[in-house]
Amino acid sequence: MAGNSFGVVFRVTTFGESHGPALGCVVDGCPAEIALDGETIAAELRRRRPGMGGPAATARSERDEPELLSGVFEGKTLGTPIAIIIRNKDPRPGDYAVLKDLYRPGHADWTWEAKYGLRDHRGGGRASGRETAGRVAAGAVAKAFLASPACRNDLTGGGPGGVSIRAWVSQAAGIDAPQPGEADFDLEEAERNPLRVPGRAAAERIGQRLAELAEAGDSAGGIVSCRIGGLPPGLGEPVFGKLGALLGQAVLSIGACKGVEFGEGFAAAVSTGSAHNDSPAFPPFWDGAPGTGAFKTNHSGGTLGGISTGMDVVFRAAFKPPASIPRGQITVNRAGEPVEAAVRGRHDLCIAPRAAPVVEAMSALVVADLLLLRRRARPRH
Amino acid sequence: MAGNSFGVVFRVTTFGESHGPALGCVVDGCPAEIALDGETIAAELRRRRPGMGGPAATARSERDEPELLSGVFEGKTLGTPIAIIIRNKDPRPGDYAVLKDLYRPGHADWTWEAKYGLRDHRGGGRASGRETAGRVAAGAVAKAFLASPACRNDLTGGGPGGVSIRAWVSQAAGIDAPQPGEADFDLEEAERNPLRVPGRAAAERIGQRLAELAEAGDSAGGIVSCRIGGLPPGLGEPVFGKLGALLGQAVLSIGACKGVEFGEGFAAAVSTGSAHNDSPAFPPFWDGAPGTGAFKTNHSGGTLGGISTGMDVVFRAAFKPPASIPRGQITVNRAGEPVEAAVRGRHDLCIAPRAAPVVEAMSALVVADLLLLRRRARPRH
Amino acid sequence: MAGNSFGVVFRVTTFGESHGPALGCVVDGCPAEIALDGETIAAELRRRRPGMGGPAATARSERDEPELLSGVFEGKTLGTPIAIIIRNKDPRPGDYAVLKDLYRPGHADWTWEAKYGLRDHRGGGRASGRETAGRVAAGAVAKAFLASPACRNDLTGGGPGGVSIRAWVSQAAGIDAPQPGEADFDLEEAERNPLRVPGRAAAERIGQRLAELAEAGDSAGGIVSCRIGGLPPGLGEPVFGKLGALLGQAVLSIGACKGVEFGEGFAAAVSTGSAHNDSPAFPPFWDGAPGTGAFKTNHSGGTLGGISTGMDVVFRAAFKPPASIPRGQITVNRAGEPVEAAVRGRHDLCIAPRAAPVVEAMSALVVADLLLLRRRARPRH
Amino acid sequence: MAGNSFGVVFRVTTFGESHGPALGCVVDGCPAEIALDGETIAAELRRRRPGMGGPAATARSERDEPELLSGVFEGKTLGTPIAIIIRNKDPRPGDYAVLKDLYRPGHADWTWEAKYGLRDHRGGGRASGRETAGRVAAGAVAKAFLASPACRNDLTGGGPGGVSIRAWVSQAAGIDAPQPGEADFDLEEAERNPLRVPGRAAAERIGQRLAELAEAGDSAGGIVSCRIGGLPPGLGEPVFGKLGALLGQAVLSIGACKGVEFGEGFAAAVSTGSAHNDSPAFPPFWDGAPGTGAFKTNHSGGTLGGISTGMDVVFRAAFKPPASIPRGQITVNRAGEPVEAAVRGRHDLCIAPRAAPVVEAMSALVVADLLLLRRRARPRH
Repeated sequence: MAGNSFGVVFRVTTFGESHGPALGCVVDGCPAEIALDGETIAAELRRRRPGMGGPAATARSERDEPELLSGVFEGKTLGTPIAIIIRNKDPRPGDYAVLKDLYRPGHADWTWEAKYGLRDHRGGGRASGRETAGRVAAGAVAKAFLASPACRNDLTGGGPGGVSIRAWVSQAAGIDAPQPGEADFDLEEAERNPLRVPGRAAAERIGQRLAELAEAGDSAGGIVSCRIGGLPPGLGEPVFGKLGALLGQAVLSIGACKGVEFGEGFAAAVSTGSAHNDSPAFPPFWDGAPGTGAFKTNHSGGTLGGISTGMDVVFRAAFKPPASIPRGQITVNRAGEPVEAAVRGRHDLCIAPRAAPVVEAMSALVVADLLLLRRRARPRH
Repeated sequence: MAGNSFGVVFRVTTFGESHGPALGCVVDGCPAEIALDGETIAAELRRRRPGMGGPAATARSERDEPELLSGVFEGKTLGTPIAIIIRNKDPRPGDYAVLKDLYRPGHADWTWEAKYGLRDHRGGGRASGRETAGRVAAGAVAKAFLASPACRNDLTGGGPGGVSIRAWVSQAAGIDAPQPGEADFDLEEAERNPLRVPGRAAAERIGQRLAELAEAGDSAGGIVSCRIGGLPPGLGEPVFGKLGALLGQAVLSIGACKGVEFGEGFAAAVSTGSAHNDSPAFPPFWDGAPGTGAFKTNHSGGTLGGISTGMDVVFRAAFKPPASIPRGQITVNRAGEPVEAAVRGRHDLCIAPRAAPVVEAMSALVVADLLLLRRRARPRH
Repeated sequence: MAGNSFGVVFRVTTFGESHGPALGCVVDGCPAEIALDGETIAAELRRRRPGMGGPAATARSERDEPELLSGVFEGKTLGTPIAIIIRNKDPRPGDYAVLKDLYRPGHADWTWEAKYGLRDHRGGGRASGRETAGRVAAGAVAKAFLASPACRNDLTGGGPGGVSIRAWVSQAAGIDAPQPGEADFDLEEAERNPLRVPGRAAAERIGQRLAELAEAGDSAGGIVSCRIGGLPPGLGEPVFGKLGALLGQAVLSIGACKGVEFGEGFAAAVSTGSAHNDSPAFPPFWDGAPGTGAFKTNHSGGTLGGISTGMDVVFRAAFKPPASIPRGQITVNRAGEPVEAAVRGRHDLCIAPRAAPVVEAMSALVVADLLLLRRRARPRH
Repeated sequence: MAGNSFGVVFRVTTFGESHGPALGCVVDGCPAEIALDGETIAAELRRRRPGMGGPAATARSERDEPELLSGVFEGKTLGTPIAIIIRNKDPRPGDYAVLKDLYRPGHADWTWEAKYGLRDHRGGGRASGRETAGRVAAGAVAKAFLASPACRNDLTGGGPGGVSIRAWVSQAAGIDAPQPGEADFDLEEAERNPLRVPGRAAAERIGQRLAELAEAGDSAGGIVSCRIGGLPPGLGEPVFGKLGALLGQAVLSIGACKGVEFGEGFAAAVSTGSAHNDSPAFPPFWDGAPGTGAFKTNHSGGTLGGISTGMDVVFRAAFKPPASIPRGQITVNRAGEPVEAAVRGRHDLCIAPRAAPVVEAMSALVVADLLLLRRRARPRH
C-alpha cells in the first residue's frame, strides 16, 4: 500500500506538509447514515492542537478549524469518501529559512532528502508532528462511527456503552504518573490538566521538571498508555493482521514513537507460564456482552492468538524526547561542513501529552476497520 | 488486506494448520532471475524446526522438507508466484482429542472459536507456532533476493556486503545474555548453541534455569534482539509505512510477541533530547555505501522520521512464556464447567530461541518489500 | 497489489506454471462454517479440464485432482486460508523443447521474456491457459460460499434460490448460438454438449466449422455470455470498484479475452436515452427479495451507477482464436533469425467452451467479495 | 480496496459530490522531483469541464480551478501525497429539489439508496459525472510524471518521445468519425472541435444529429477510442493485473461506460488464428526503444499475455446515452407511486466528448502505476 493510507475497509489517507496550504484526510469506507458534523471533528482536533499541552507544548497558534468537503449530507455520512481539510493559518516559514541547508540532529531532514532527493524544509514538511492533525480528524470520524447505534447494534454485540478509547500520559521526563489500580489514578483529571496526566500531583511534578528542562534548553521523553474498552471478542485478522500487530503498526507510525508493549509487555519476558496465563472465568463465561469479565486476569492485555478476548485492550507506547531543542548542537550542512543547530522555532518540550489523542485516533481507526472486517468472518445464520 | 498476506510488492500469503495436510506460503512479487532452490529454503526451515531449541524446544519431530511448486525454473525465479509447501508428517492428533471441548488458559482456543464459530483444536490449528514455518520459507526467498547481485547492484547502493539480518536471544527465563558491545558478545556462538544465546556461559545458565522450570512443569518468556545491517538510507514509506511501524507489525504478528522497541526504545522515554539526538558524522557524511557511519551515534536504532539512516536497524522483541504447561491449571470447557488442563503435548519451554529465525524472516520480508518500493520514490535521472 | 491476487476481503492468490510441479490457489477471507470438500472443487475443475470442450479442446489429459491442504476441518471452512493444489501429471516438456528459443506469433513468449528476462518455455509457463485451473478451484470455493445458508440469510436478502452464475458459448467460429429469449435457447443443453452451446443444432454447426478449421491447421474465436441471477441490489463499490468495472477486470484478466460488454454494451452507443433508460417497475417496486423485477427493462445489464439493481447481471466476453496453430507461421528466434513455427503441442481449437467455466469462476469471486464488502456499507440498525 | 482508490504504488483516491463543497483527489506514490504546478492541472480540467463539449454538453458553468494543497514545493513534487481540490462554485441545488423523492429512469438514484440507505439527491451526488473532475486532476499528475525526464530515462527505456495518450470520439449518435488509417483521420482536429471528433465533416454531421435529438428531448450514446504510444514492452502484472484487465477496470469505472475492447476486440471473436496472430518483426526485432515496430501487425492492440508488446495500445469504450433527458418519462417516487420525470437540469446530450479526457486520465493512472511496478519485476544487473 502506498505509505499514506491505513486500513482495509475503513480506510484513511492523510496528506499535508507542516507549512503548506493545508493538511487533511480522506476517509473511505465509513458506513452510511452515521451522524457527523464539523464540530465533532473540531472537538477532537482541539485535544491535540498547538497551545494545548501546557508547558510541554509548542507556542505555535493554529485554530485548526476543519472543513468537511464531502461525504456528509444533512448531518449524516453518505457512504462516500469523507474529505476533511485543515488550513495552515500561522505558518512562519521565515523561522525555518536557516534550516534549508542544515540537517538537524535527531530529525528526519537528512533521511527524507536521502529518500526523495529534496524536502520541504519548512518546519519539517510532512515529517512534522503537525501531520497528525489529519490522523486526528480521521480518528474523529472513526469515533463517531464507533459511537453510532448501527455500530453498537450490529457490530459490537449490543453492549450499552459501546467502545471506549482512552489514552493518557503515564510517565514523562522520567516521572511516573499514577497507574491504573492505584488510589490516585484519575482518568478525568487527565482531561483537565494540559499534560494529560491522570493525577494532579504527578502533573505538577512533571510540569516542574519540564520547566527545568526548558530552562536548560532541553526536551523530555514520555510514555502514553491506552485502554480500549467495550470490544467484543473476535477482533483481529490472523495471522499478520493480529489486533496487537495492527495497533503496533498504528502507534509506531506516530513520529517519535520508539516502542510499544501490550498487557504485561516486556515484563512478560521475565514471567512464567503459570503466572502469566489468563484463565477463563465462570459462570457465566460469556453472555454476549463485551467487557463482562470473560477472563479472571488480563496479563495478555486483551488479546489471545491475536484476537480480542472481550477484556480491555491495554498497551503502552514510548516516545522519545523531541529532537528540536534550543541548546546548541553540532551538526552538518548540505556542504558537509560542521555547523551549530540551535533550533529556535516553536516546539514541544515533551510530545507525550499531544501524542495521547493521536494514539486514541489511531486506535479508533484500527478498531473501526477490524469491526467491519470481523463481520465477514462469520455471517449470521 | 486479508489477514494472511503481508507486503505490498514483495507480497507473501501463508496458509496451513498445525495438524492439517500441509503448511506453506506463496510469495508474489519476487523479482525474476534470482537464484533459488529447495535446499536454500530447507536450510532456513532447519533453523526453526522442532527439535532445535535444545532444552527449550518441543519434542515434535518434523523434518520440514519444503517442496517448491512454482515460480522457479532451472534454478532461477521466474517473476511468477513462488509456492512452497511443507507437509505435516508427524501429526499425533490423538494427543489433542482431550482439547476438543476445552479452552486452555493463555491460548487462542476460545478467541478463535468466538471469532469463527469453530476451530481446528488439533495442536492449536492455525494459532499454533507451527504456522511460522510458512513465514520462514517465505523469508528464505526474501533472503535469497536480498543476497542477489541484482538487489545489491540496483537497490542497496552497491555495498559489497549486502543486507545482513541477524536475530538472537538476548534474554530468557529472566537471565541476560551478553549484549552487543560487551566483551563476551559472540554472535557466532548464537548459531552454535540451540538456545541462540550469543555467549556460551549465559547459554548454560539459561539452559539450567529452563531445566528447573521444566521440572516444575512451567515455561519461560524471553527477548529476541535483531540487527539489520547494510541497509541504504531511504527505506520506509511515510507516514503509516514507516520502517519501524512495518517491522513492528511484522514482529508483533508472531504469536506470543507482546512488545517491540527500536534503538533505545522504552529507555528513550526517560532520556532528553540533548542525550538522545543522533548527529550526522563527517567527513564524509555519506558516500553512497550503506553502513559507512553516517551518524555519530545510533540511539534511534537506525531510523529517523520512519526512514532508514544507513546505520544498523536494531530492535528487541518480548515473547511471553508458552501457554502450554504440564502443570495443572483450572480452566473452562465448552459446557462452562471448570476442568483441569494439564497440557501433555509436545511444547516449547521458551519460544525465544525458535522465534529468532522467525524474527529474521519477517524482517527480511519487510526489507525486501521496502527496497522494491523505495525505487519508485525517486527514479534515476 | 501484486498481480496474482484478486479481491479485497474474499481474496484469492493463484500460482503455478503449465509444466511445473503443480498449480493452485489460496483463498483468504472465506467465511468460516461453509460446507466444503474436495469433490466440490473437483467437480468444477472437471468442467474446464483438458479433454472437455470436445472437438474444440486440447488432447492433453490431466485428471486435475485437487488436494485441499488447509482451511477446512471436518468438512467445514475454518475461516483460515484455503490452499488447494493440482499436480501436473501429464507434462510432456519434450514437446516444447523446440520452443525454447522461439517467439511464437500471437503468444506471450516474447513479452514475458521482455518483462522478466527469462521464461519457462514449457507450454507457455504461467501464460498458459492451464493457469486458470487455480482460478476455477478458487471459484468453486466462492460458489460454495454463495450457496451456503449463511450467505443466503445474511448477505443476499433471503431469496430462496441464492445467487446463480451461468456462462455459455453464444458464438464460436463466427456462428451464433441461440440467444436468451429465442425459442431454441436451452441452457441445460449447454451443460450437455462439450462446446457449451445452448442449442443442439447450433452446437453441431459450430462443431462442423471447427472440424474444418482443424483440417486447415487453424483456430477460431468465440464469445462467452454470462448471466448472474439472484443478486440483491447494492453490490458494487463506487467509484473505481463498480460492479461492471470489477467484473470487467476479472474477465479481461482471462488470457485471450479481448473485450467485454454489459447489457446492451456496444449497442448502447448507438441508442438514445429514451430507448435505453431502464425505468423502475411498480407496484411493488422492491420487496427485499432479489430478482423480483424491480425494473421494467434491463438494457443496462443489471447495474446503474456501478451498483447492482437486483435484475440479472448480463455480459458478454470476446475471446480471440488460440494462437497455437499447426499451420506454419514465420516468426523470429532468440537470435533474431526468421524461423517457421508450426505448433504441434496439444491445443484448443477454440477457447470459448473451456473459458466459460473460468468466466463463471471469476464472476463468483467478484460477487463473493462484493457481498462481503456490501455489508460494511450499511450495518443493520 | 475501498472503492474510491485506484492503483498500487501510484495510488489515487478521489472524493466529492456534485453539489457538495468540493471535489478532489489525493495522489499517493507519485515520485519526487517531478515538475508540477496548478496550471498543468487546470489545463487538463479545462478539457473536460462543463461548457466544453459544444452542443453535446451541459450548460453548467464551472471554472474548475484546482487548488494544490500538498505534495508540491517550489514547483516540484515532494514524494508526499498530492491533494488537489476543486470547489463547486455554481451549484443550483434548487434545480434538484424535485428529485429528492424520485428515482429517475436509467440513473443511480435508487441503487445508491438501496446500498447506502440515503443519498445526496442534488445532481446525482457522487454518482454524477462531475465526480470525474477528481480523476482528471489525478490524471494530470500522472501525465506530468510520464512526461518527466526521470520517467523517460529510468522507466520507459529512453525513447525520446515518452508516453503519449490520446483519446477521441470515434462514433457518436450512431455516426462514425474517421478511423485511424483513413485519409481524413485528423487527431489534431479532435482537439479543435468541441465534440472531440477527428474530422471536421464528421463533427458537423454529428453536431447536427445531436441538435435534432436535443430538439426531441433525447440524448445519444457514443464511442471513445484511445491510443497509448511510446510504451516499453513489459507493462502489466500477470495474471489478474494484465494491462488490458487494468485498463478495462479503469475505463469501465467511468459512469455510463458499458463496454471496452482491445485491438480487434469483438471482431477477434470471428477471426482465425492464422489471420489474427501478430508475428514479431525483424531485423531489428527490438532495440530497446519503445514504439519501434516490434511486431508486423497489431491485431492484439498492443498486449500479448497481458503484457505490453511495445506496439501502440489501442482500445475502444462504449458509452450509453445520458439518462437525463427533458422528454417526460414515467418512473416511481419514494412512495411507490408513478410520476413523470422530465429532467430540466443542465445535462450532456452525449457524454463521449467529455468522457475522452477521462479515458486519457484513467489510462495515465494505469500506465504510471504499471511503469513503477514493472521496475520491481527485474532489477538492473
